[in-house]
Amino acid sequence: MLMTFIGVPLSVIGSLLHWSNIVLFIIYCLTIVALASYMGRATESLAIVAGPRIGGLLNATFGNAVELIISIFSLKAGLVGIVLASLTGSVLGNLLLVAGLSFFIGGLKFKRQSFNVYDARHNSGLLMFAVIIAFVIPEVFSINMNETKTLSLSIGISVILIILYLAALFFKLVTHRGVYQPSTEKAAHEEEEPEWGKGKAIAVLFIATIAVAYISEHLVHTFEYVGETLGWSELFIGVIIVAIVGNAAEHASAIVMAFKNKMDIAVEIAIGSTLQVAMFVLPVLVLVSLFFDTTMPLLFSWQELIAMVSSVLLMVVISNDGESNWFEGLTLLAAYLIMGIGFYLL
Amino acid sequence: MLMTFIGVPLSVIGSLLHWSNIVLFIIYCLTIVALASYMGRATESLAIVAGPRIGGLLNATFGNAVELIISIFSLKAGLVGIVLASLTGSVLGNLLLVAGLSFFIGGLKFKRQSFNVYDARHNSGLLMFAVIIAFVIPEVFSINMNETKTLSLSIGISVILIILYLAALFFKLVTHRGVYQPSTEKAAHEEEEPEWGKGKAIAVLFIATIAVAYISEHLVHTFEYVGETLGWSELFIGVIIVAIVGNAAEHASAIVMAFKNKMDIAVEIAIGSTLQVAMFVLPVLVLVSLFFDTTMPLLFSWQELIAMVSSVLLMVVISNDGESNWFEGLTLLAAYLIMGIGFYLL
Amino acid sequence: MLMTFIGVPLSVIGSLLHWSNIVLFIIYCLTIVALASYMGRATESLAIVAGPRIGGLLNATFGNAVELIISIFSLKAGLVGIVLASLTGSVLGNLLLVAGLSFFIGGLKFKRQSFNVYDARHNSGLLMFAVIIAFVIPEVFSINMNETKTLSLSIGISVILIILYLAALFFKLVTHRGVYQPSTEKAAHEEEEPEWGKGKAIAVLFIATIAVAYISEHLVHTFEYVGETLGWSELFIGVIIVAIVGNAAEHASAIVMAFKNKMDIAVEIAIGSTLQVAMFVLPVLVLVSLFFDTTMPLLFSWQELIAMVSSVLLMVVISNDGESNWFEGLTLLAAYLIMGIGFYLL
Repeated sequence: MLMTFIGVPLSVIGSLLHWSNIVLFIIYCLTIVALASYMGRATESLAIVAGPRIGGLLNATFGNAVELIISIFSLKAGLVGIVLASLTGSVLGNLLLVAGLSFFIGGLKFKRQSFNVYDARHNSGLLMFAVIIAFVIPEVFSINMNETKTLSLSIGISVILIILYLAALFFKLVTHRGVYQPSTEKAAHEEEEPEWGKGKAIAVLFIATIAVAYISEHLVHTFEYVGETLGWSELFIGVIIVAIVGNAAEHASAIVMAFKNKMDIAVEIAIGSTLQVAMFVLPVLVLVSLFFDTTMPLLFSWQELIAMVSSVLLMVVISNDGESNWFEGLTLLAAYLIMGIGFYLL
Repeated sequence: MLMTFIGVPLSVIGSLLHWSNIVLFIIYCLTIVALASYMGRATESLAIVAGPRIGGLLNATFGNAVELIISIFSLKAGLVGIVLASLTGSVLGNLLLVAGLSFFIGGLKFKRQSFNVYDARHNSGLLMFAVIIAFVIPEVFSINMNETKTLSLSIGISVILIILYLAALFFKLVTHRGVYQPSTEKAAHEEEEPEWGKGKAIAVLFIATIAVAYISEHLVHTFEYVGETLGWSELFIGVIIVAIVGNAAEHASAIVMAFKNKMDIAVEIAIGSTLQVAMFVLPVLVLVSLFFDTTMPLLFSWQELIAMVSSVLLMVVISNDGESNWFEGLTLLAAYLIMGIGFYLL
Repeated sequence: MLMTFIGVPLSVIGSLLHWSNIVLFIIYCLTIVALASYMGRATESLAIVAGPRIGGLLNATFGNAVELIISIFSLKAGLVGIVLASLTGSVLGNLLLVAGLSFFIGGLKFKRQSFNVYDARHNSGLLMFAVIIAFVIPEVFSINMNETKTLSLSIGISVILIILYLAALFFKLVTHRGVYQPSTEKAAHEEEEPEWGKGKAIAVLFIATIAVAYISEHLVHTFEYVGETLGWSELFIGVIIVAIVGNAAEHASAIVMAFKNKMDIAVEIAIGSTLQVAMFVLPVLVLVSLFFDTTMPLLFSWQELIAMVSSVLLMVVISNDGESNWFEGLTLLAAYLIMGIGFYLL
């Protein structure tokens, strides 16, 4: 990806020379997408070197590092609305767009594709917990609460979400490692080799993270102008644009995996990523926001909440049988399109 | 059915002589029920002659022709509320009453009845998509939208629904025909013989459609008087009465199939019919309404929406295992009764 | 349990001498817990003597006798809010706390535990019916109804719930007894021996019921003072405290069963108890309230309703595969904790 070597200097120069916000917005977005793919590869290499347990933890924390960084700068700038919108978009994008494209494109090549049904059900349970319980409860309870209580509830739920997320890693990587997997799969995992050595991976991760952080800080400030110029609402920028930029790397790799009929990995990227955002990135941001001027309670707009709830219900029903085909993919894509139109018009 | 030969002339004479609206209402309803069964048989015969692909398409379009016709005349008369109510009623009636009676009556004869679990899951996905996504999203998003935007969203969703419905037919009849069926079933399907020849079937379909159209136009105008006289609300007439009249033919055949232990067909009629209404009849009506004075956005009342959402969730959970018994039927019937009481009191 | 022989006299003396309400509240609660365990053992013994059919009926009616009694006295005192709250708490407590602890503690000992998947699905259908249909519909329909109509709807739904509950017993104990059970289980059930004889069991049941009734009447009157003193809201007392007191016996026995790897029984206690409350205790109370000054329509607060709806959806997804592990238990417990915090802050 040559993009990185052009994009990063361009971003720095552009921001110093105060180029047009639209141009900067596009440069920033493309550069972040390129950097994200580097970070993904570095994390992947480190994870293989570190072994499955620490590797899983690394993946879990760095997998959505880009989103976390963009969000922290947005929070610092007081853009709570955009942060919640972009996390909503990340959930919708991973659940409907990434999984939808994987199912659809994989399904064009293969008539029926199957994935580990136990993992699918484990993930369904977590999706229900995170979205239907942890996001819905503060929304409904805060109706009769003042701000302080709403914030207390948000903090409590955030802590519970993070603990349960760590417990899920512990469950998957320690106590129940391989319990729900067919033995053939276990063997296949052993062979992987890291793309980069430990030193190079850490260096790439370190440099790319700093670059993403620098660009993110500037990206955030272009939102307002871009929205005004193109007539896009804050919600649409957050839910659709930022979400696609922040998750571009995942999109690409999930679809490649689906095309190779490795549906287990494709589904894991799509749903695993959703869970990372919902159960780790979001609650961490709620807690981080306590150190900023504007705190962020766990309160989505009703439109965001219902969009997530209905997507989760659709995904749970569709993924429950451990099989996919092109039509299921198309259904998810159609759902994403409906949400996209909805947020655009809002 | 002698009813047709008496009912049609009676309807014409009655409407010319301005008989009491209650009497006319009853004559119209019974005649439509009789004509609907003729249309059903004609469609069935044509479908067999035309082969499974075109036949499936024919069934899909003419299967709910009666409802479509009644609804278009209601729309022309500006009765948007009654149209949405009758489509809600059609969804509830097919999901709860038709399937409930099939499961219950079939279950009285057989201890456990089973149907194709793949079809059931495919249908569950579509039900979730249509009701939980396509109907819920405009309801929640329109809260913060003006009328023009709500209509744009409705049009977009309607187009997506129709495309996905056609894609589902393509999936079932072309790319995945027989993929999810046990081989024994495939053989059984070959033997069917059409009841009527091609010419007779087309003639019956043509004449019956015209007769239904004529009567429907008059039926629509009796609603107001009937409601006032019997103390029934517009909602109750739409959700319960019109829905039962419009779906009487399906009711009868689904129950007969269940009694013969052909649960695949019974379920297909009940849920397939629901999907036709939700993904084809309704969006077509939204688009057709653009040519009339009163446009119809995809906005149900909250009561209608929640009734459909909860029915779909119940049906998904109950049908998910591909088995039925009398108690599952009774549960669906009890749910229908609760909705019936609710709409009556509203 | 020595607690009973000290608790009952203490309760009587305390209430006569007008001890501090907090002290009385604690004595009453502990005594009821002790008495409940006696009633449970008496019911169990009677059920074995009476055979599975009458026994099932006995369990169904006396299983939640304590809750029914406390609630009737609360209703008589006009505390409709507390009754609905405590029934909500009973549903949440059984679904999330009892099942969660069973799954978690059982899962600490066994890697994978399984229970009858047919029963789990049967119960899922009933949970959906009771909570998603019978509780949600009056909530949404009553928005546009006056009080009389809301009460009529509540009465209608209550009657339907009771009939369906009895039908479910008929289904399980008569028409489909053993149909969905592996043959090994059937054999195991024959051996049970009653702990107490018929006469002793009836005597214990009779005396304990009177004692519970006496104490409950006094317990109800301490709620207000306890709430004021400890800063607990009526909702929190109802949903969390009363629910735990009323269901302590079930909690203990479900966990013991899970620890013995008898997950069928643990799940039956947790979910069966939820269904008893939702489909029998609650509708009976609605009907009983017609004889009191303050009638109780089937109307929960939105917070209570959404808490129950989301818990049911979570449980349906988690229990659907007929397997459990410690992490699924932890997920349920985390959900209970979130609800607890929510109701505490409300």
